Amino acid sequence: MTKDWNVLKIDLSSGIVKRESLSYEYVRRFIGGRGLGAALIAPYATEGVDPLDGSVPLVLAAGPLTGAGIPSGDRFSLSTISPLTGTVMDTNSGGRLGRSLRRAGSDLMIISGKSESPVVLVVDDDEVRLEGALDLWGCTVSETILLLTERWGKTAGMSVIGPAGENGVRYASIMTERMRAMGRGGAGAVMGSKNLKAMVVIGSGKVPVHDKERLKVVLEESNRWLRAHPVTSKALPALGTPMLVKICTRAGIFPLRNFQSVAVGEDQAYTGEELAKRFTVSSSGCTGCYIQCGRVTEVDGSRGEGPEYESLWALGPDMGIEDLRKIIPAAHRCNELGMDTISAGGSIACAMELAQRDIRPSSARFSDAGSVMKLLDDIAYRRGEGDELADGSLAVARNAGAVQYAMQVKGMELPGYDPRGAQGQGLAYATSNRGGCHLRGGYLIAREILGIPKKVHGTQVLGKGGHVARAQDFGAVADSLSVCRFATFALAPEYWSRMLHAVTGWELGGEDLIRTGERIITLERILNLEMGVGPDSDSLPPRFTNEPLTEGACTGEVVHLDDLLAEYYAHREWPGGIPSENKIKELGLDEERGRVL
Amino acid sequence: MTKDWNVLKIDLSSGIVKRESLSYEYVRRFIGGRGLGAALIAPYATEGVDPLDGSVPLVLAAGPLTGAGIPSGDRFSLSTISPLTGTVMDTNSGGRLGRSLRRAGSDLMIISGKSESPVVLVVDDDEVRLEGALDLWGCTVSETILLLTERWGKTAGMSVIGPAGENGVRYASIMTERMRAMGRGGAGAVMGSKNLKAMVVIGSGKVPVHDKERLKVVLEESNRWLRAHPVTSKALPALGTPMLVKICTRAGIFPLRNFQSVAVGEDQAYTGEELAKRFTVSSSGCTGCYIQCGRVTEVDGSRGEGPEYESLWALGPDMGIEDLRKIIPAAHRCNELGMDTISAGGSIACAMELAQRDIRPSSARFSDAGSVMKLLDDIAYRRGEGDELADGSLAVARNAGAVQYAMQVKGMELPGYDPRGAQGQGLAYATSNRGGCHLRGGYLIAREILGIPKKVHGTQVLGKGGHVARAQDFGAVADSLSVCRFATFALAPEYWSRMLHAVTGWELGGEDLIRTGERIITLERILNLEMGVGPDSDSLPPRFTNEPLTEGACTGEVVHLDDLLAEYYAHREWPGGIPSENKIKELGLDEERGRVL
Repeated sequence: MTKDWNVLKIDLSSGIVKRESLSYEYVRRFIGGRGLGAALIAPYATEGVDPLDGSVPLVLAAGPLTGAGIPSGDRFSLSTISPLTGTVMDTNSGGRLGRSLRRAGSDLMIISGKSESPVVLVVDDDEVRLEGALDLWGCTVSETILLLTERWGKTAGMSVIGPAGENGVRYASIMTERMRAMGRGGAGAVMGSKNLKAMVVIGSGKVPVHDKERLKVVLEESNRWLRAHPVTSKALPALGTPMLVKICTRAGIFPLRNFQSVAVGEDQAYTGEELAKRFTVSSSGCTGCYIQCGRVTEVDGSRGEGPEYESLWALGPDMGIEDLRKIIPAAHRCNELGMDTISAGGSIACAMELAQRDIRPSSARFSDAGSVMKLLDDIAYRRGEGDELADGSLAVARNAGAVQYAMQVKGMELPGYDPRGAQGQGLAYATSNRGGCHLRGGYLIAREILGIPKKVHGTQVLGKGGHVARAQDFGAVADSLSVCRFATFALAPEYWSRMLHAVTGWELGGEDLIRTGERIITLERILNLEMGVGPDSDSLPPRFTNEPLTEGACTGEVVHLDDLLAEYYAHREWPGGIPSENKIKELGLDEERGRVL
Repeated sequence: MTKDWNVLKIDLSSGIVKRESLSYEYVRRFIGGRGLGAALIAPYATEGVDPLDGSVPLVLAAGPLTGAGIPSGDRFSLSTISPLTGTVMDTNSGGRLGRSLRRAGSDLMIISGKSESPVVLVVDDDEVRLEGALDLWGCTVSETILLLTERWGKTAGMSVIGPAGENGVRYASIMTERMRAMGRGGAGAVMGSKNLKAMVVIGSGKVPVHDKERLKVVLEESNRWLRAHPVTSKALPALGTPMLVKICTRAGIFPLRNFQSVAVGEDQAYTGEELAKRFTVSSSGCTGCYIQCGRVTEVDGSRGEGPEYESLWALGPDMGIEDLRKIIPAAHRCNELGMDTISAGGSIACAMELAQRDIRPSSARFSDAGSVMKLLDDIAYRRGEGDELADGSLAVARNAGAVQYAMQVKGMELPGYDPRGAQGQGLAYATSNRGGCHLRGGYLIAREILGIPKKVHGTQVLGKGGHVARAQDFGAVADSLSVCRFATFALAPEYWSRMLHAVTGWELGGEDLIRTGERIITLERILNLEMGVGPDSDSLPPRFTNEPLTEGACTGEVVHLDDLLAEYYAHREWPGGIPSENKIKELGLDEERGRVL
């Protein structure tokens, strides 16, 4: 098939809509989704750029598999520059938007400029328009979705922001019609700064498939592996990601109180099992997906999606709160406000530790759930102390002259895995292109804790450079395809290669895909360097490198970051953290330079 | 299907033949071929064992794919204990023997004991017998094959030894009906010590296939990748393995004169291109295989198979001989004598260097091709100086009190890649379970020189531990399946997983296979430890670690073996080179212990 990609360019400042195309050879070099997003964001990655002044576009890209009927492959990706970290960023989600976009005949949207007043972008098959959204501005996420659903029906794809995005919270999320978040990095703030309240896409066409017979065979084989894998067939369907609470606690890496200690013992009140038993109403997940990793929970009449493991942790034990009755409503509230749970929790936990140490006063105190609920709203509406916390933990700690208490990398708050017991995860945090993120870093927890694809001991240092590089490369492939990370637990690169061939006719083998992942990671690295985010920022809070854990299975451990980085840079051929000319050439990124850099 | 395996047990001492079976669950734990061979050799791996006294069996095993019509999958494997290295060993070859064995209804032969006089083992479908072979004893390999073909026809599978095997040359090979060698480690000497001149197998049945439709699909896809890969589609079909001469010379790792220097420049007279242009009569290869990596060459009426890259090097530049007119006949002669070219060349090259240094007198002199031809015969017939050389370079150098000039690991002579410019290859030599071998070590040349599956710089040290471990694991899978290593250049583990499923019905994913490879490597390691071959022997000749290269692209480099080993042991979880109890348990080898150890 090898069909060129259709691009919709929408300039919010002028309201002008253009249709262009991208050659399939160009798309294939970056696969789609995250990779293509990075290539298209490249011209904007310059020193001093401000993603909240309307100068940087949002690139919303389908993956080449999106809409082809692959259960775990219906995601879409959004790329821009992060107002939280100053790095290039991408974020993705399941939901109907990407699939609808392709059914409407486009593969990609580039949304630039800034509207004078609030608007909704509507793509209704051939027709593209901006509709006034003064009535929606100020609405919470579920209110917005409800009103849009009344107007556009239940089959429209929707992505919206809440008050946090409107008010420029640097970690505001974008939420989909299913209350799933494009959570990390603050894309919601970029959307808000453009006065774009929502995107609604309706598509009634069909997504073409190159070889349906082949696709049927590979999906059949894939399903066999998804059904065979203990994580995708049992643990995730039963408990969702909160299955990790017990596992990480046992492994000695479940952090408490802004990473001041880790949990020990077996009787926590906030495990995935407790969540399932006491508060879960039903599972949820992407259409047709076997895993159904999401869950709907309810506490005292508050019903909502989640919390995921990271949200449960960030809004709970990381702030000294152990009661699921307090944690769940906080997670639902973040969804309603359109705000990343990990960064919100991490920013408040940082303020809590600064207050505990008498460095900075705060209304928040460890274990005080009431103060947290109030502060979440204050952040979203940038009121009082919340105004400062809306800029993230690094800003808060820096203002207080104590950056060491911000548990972040490159300005992004860390998720709930203490790297002292998972050295690879520590390296992943330090080198993730969008900052301290479990997903973009490579999610070494899979290897180090879950043993996927193979157990590699968490406290081992040697060899982790290669593991992290490969995991990041494969992760970039998944985000570019764009497919579910959980499905990649069970399905090796070759399965994605075969699906890709069946859907598009492209001839990219498993290792070709991994190599493309390397191209994407290296491109993102170059873009960060051009924005002044250099190797110095491949760091960790000093707590992890200097202070040994004092309890749990990994007592006595610190992160050996210098050794890890040396091996990682050698593996990537990034001497001193900077991609060598040789590597740039080998990946063909010198060809792109004139074009994208 | 999941069918048990049929085992043929032949005791040469008594002539008694038994039929037994092995459960498919047991076979699957080791795949077949090399892996199963190691498990069945395990009871014999005890300190002080002498594989030339008849006490150790030959285990001849098909792979689970053998005979199923997979072009690169028709190999068979032979396992025993090496008289050259004192380690566990396996060796495999393409040809008709494995396929015929399965068509005759068996999957595996265990040949134990020792015949009183020379015999041929004949498996003629249901019938198994030993035939007197006094007439064949003393015949060269091609004479033997000719006589056996006259008796048994052109479709019989045959494996025979030549004079070297009869006379106990510790690196005698076993040759197949197509003049392909089971070359390294001296299995031919074990066969000779049993008075077994040849094995002939005729099978007229069919090898069952679990799912023919599935097999068709995966073979079709596999062929696409074999045709797309530059090495399997172009370089190997055009030049065979001697394509490597130019590539390795350019990379600065083509050794000269017993590794005293490396070749520089472009105008060598012994390149693959010269071989093709001046001496190659035709390509050759396994039935149905696309690659046809072999070649038939002719010089002055001497026509024969090969030489492969390693043979060309060992019988040429490693001994200071650059004229293909001298090299080719030496290679053909080794085939006729049934003797490993690399060990023969390496042993003579060692004698040459010892003579050059006035440490030990020798009839051989660097560049003197005439002395080499004579010495090859003297080795095979254990005459004069040849009698000592027939024990290998380590014995020669040790007798002369100068072991540092034997270019070997664990007693096996190294092939033609200087590890100072390919650190991973150096680690591979040091850790290969059958000694200084390019294939069992993991053939890091693929990664470091050819860029398969991905280029990893040869002089880089960090990260090589993981690369070598993975390459070894995948290599063990290939040898156990037992399929062609070249095909694994183009086909990732998932393709083999799918073929395996189609042929046998077994559910082993790509990573399950790699994990099985790890089980096999670790089992072999344990067996070596039980025979007293310990971590001390994970070494290299001091030349490589102490003396920097003085010319070529890798000038100034030495092998950083300590760092490489530390990383490798950490990666394998073999602290100090010894598999941890934890790792043994994780691989399920503790279950086997009572059974196989």
